[in-house]
Amino acid sequence: MVALDVTDENKAIEISREVFQYVDAIKVGYPLVLSSHLSIVDRIKEITKKEIICDFKLADIPSTNEKIASLTLRYGDGIICHGFLGEDSIRAVQEVAKKYGEKGNYKKVIMVTEMSHRGAIQFIQPVADELAEMAKRLKVDGVVAPSTRPERLKTIKDIVGDIPVLSPGIGAQGGDLNKVLNILDEDDYIIVGRDIYESENPGRRAQYYYHILKDR
Amino acid sequence: MVALDVTDENKAIEISREVFQYVDAIKVGYPLVLSSHLSIVDRIKEITKKEIICDFKLADIPSTNEKIASLTLRYGDGIICHGFLGEDSIRAVQEVAKKYGEKGNYKKVIMVTEMSHRGAIQFIQPVADELAEMAKRLKVDGVVAPSTRPERLKTIKDIVGDIPVLSPGIGAQGGDLNKVLNILDEDDYIIVGRDIYESENPGRRAQYYYHILKDR
Repeated sequence: MVALDVTDENKAIEISREVFQYVDAIKVGYPLVLSSHLSIVDRIKEITKKEIICDFKLADIPSTNEKIASLTLRYGDGIICHGFLGEDSIRAVQEVAKKYGEKGNYKKVIMVTEMSHRGAIQFIQPVADELAEMAKRLKVDGVVAPSTRPERLKTIKDIVGDIPVLSPGIGAQGGDLNKVLNILDEDDYIIVGRDIYESENPGRRAQYYYHILKDR
Repeated sequence: MVALDVTDENKAIEISREVFQYVDAIKVGYPLVLSSHLSIVDRIKEITKKEIICDFKLADIPSTNEKIASLTLRYGDGIICHGFLGEDSIRAVQEVAKKYGEKGNYKKVIMVTEMSHRGAIQFIQPVADELAEMAKRLKVDGVVAPSTRPERLKTIKDIVGDIPVLSPGIGAQGGDLNKVLNILDEDDYIIVGRDIYESENPGRRAQYYYHILKDR
């Protein structure tokens, strides 16, 4: 999964065209959406025909999470929420996804358990196992867990069982790809951002990861 | 402070015109921005000349928070971030605000300590005092703390000292305005959303709050 955290619409489109054949999914975040428009998600989808995950890290009260999810899932195939806000905030998003599902459009609700940056050890890491257990209980469609801390990634994967894990932190953040690949399995995702979109040749860089993953 | 969590651009403009003379600031969130464009913040500012706070509840790694803040503070007068992401994620936003400040545009960085919904008791409340202490240490320009839990509001206000408190939860969420006003002082803000923007007459409803606050 490539993370498209660029703030230039044209660059995002260009990179999408270059990399889409080497990726399974594209993660779009607020940097891109705020510098263009939410409909950029649709444009990238049209060009690439890949799964588009909106990484908006929803972190609000249920009624606001619900509004954001209703708008976002009109476009994306999935949405990333924080678990830290508690069960009701996640359920509000799942309710929205369910409504789309009833109309035949399956939408994924993905929950952050632990994160890859330094500050994550302050408040998130101490409750990450509990968050992972909540994710399992709520039957979310995926969880986010960090490649920068393989031992934590392993623990979270063990807790969530068959829920797919999306793992950022490879590339610019210094995660060890080999270690991580020994933990993850086929249904999981490696997320790579800067190492692809800041590369001089994003297509070639995406191809590099494609071959590593394909050859395993 | 009125929270404009509507998803219709024209309605947002209309309500802004009706209420601005009765409020000190306007809080704009993702529901409105995603259904229009980030530049709606500027339009509302032009019409109202009031302080506009972007309630985007930033909750990402430092490099992404930095990108979102750079885009957002071009428009808004302040931005709301989550503290549970850790110190580095907040500092990244403060660095952006500082750059704007050097050019003469003071931008506020406001941090969530505790929230008003039910799920907040799971993970946020247990660390809210610690978050408030972090807010004080980082010298943020404001903290968010809930009107729905006056005893918690009081504790957080005591911790942050002279940092202004922004308190949501009055109106639709059922917070007790009198209790809350006994805790807060002149530099603090009461945030009212649905009770104003879902009212048949938002102007009159805003005026109602204006008089209560003015007469104290």
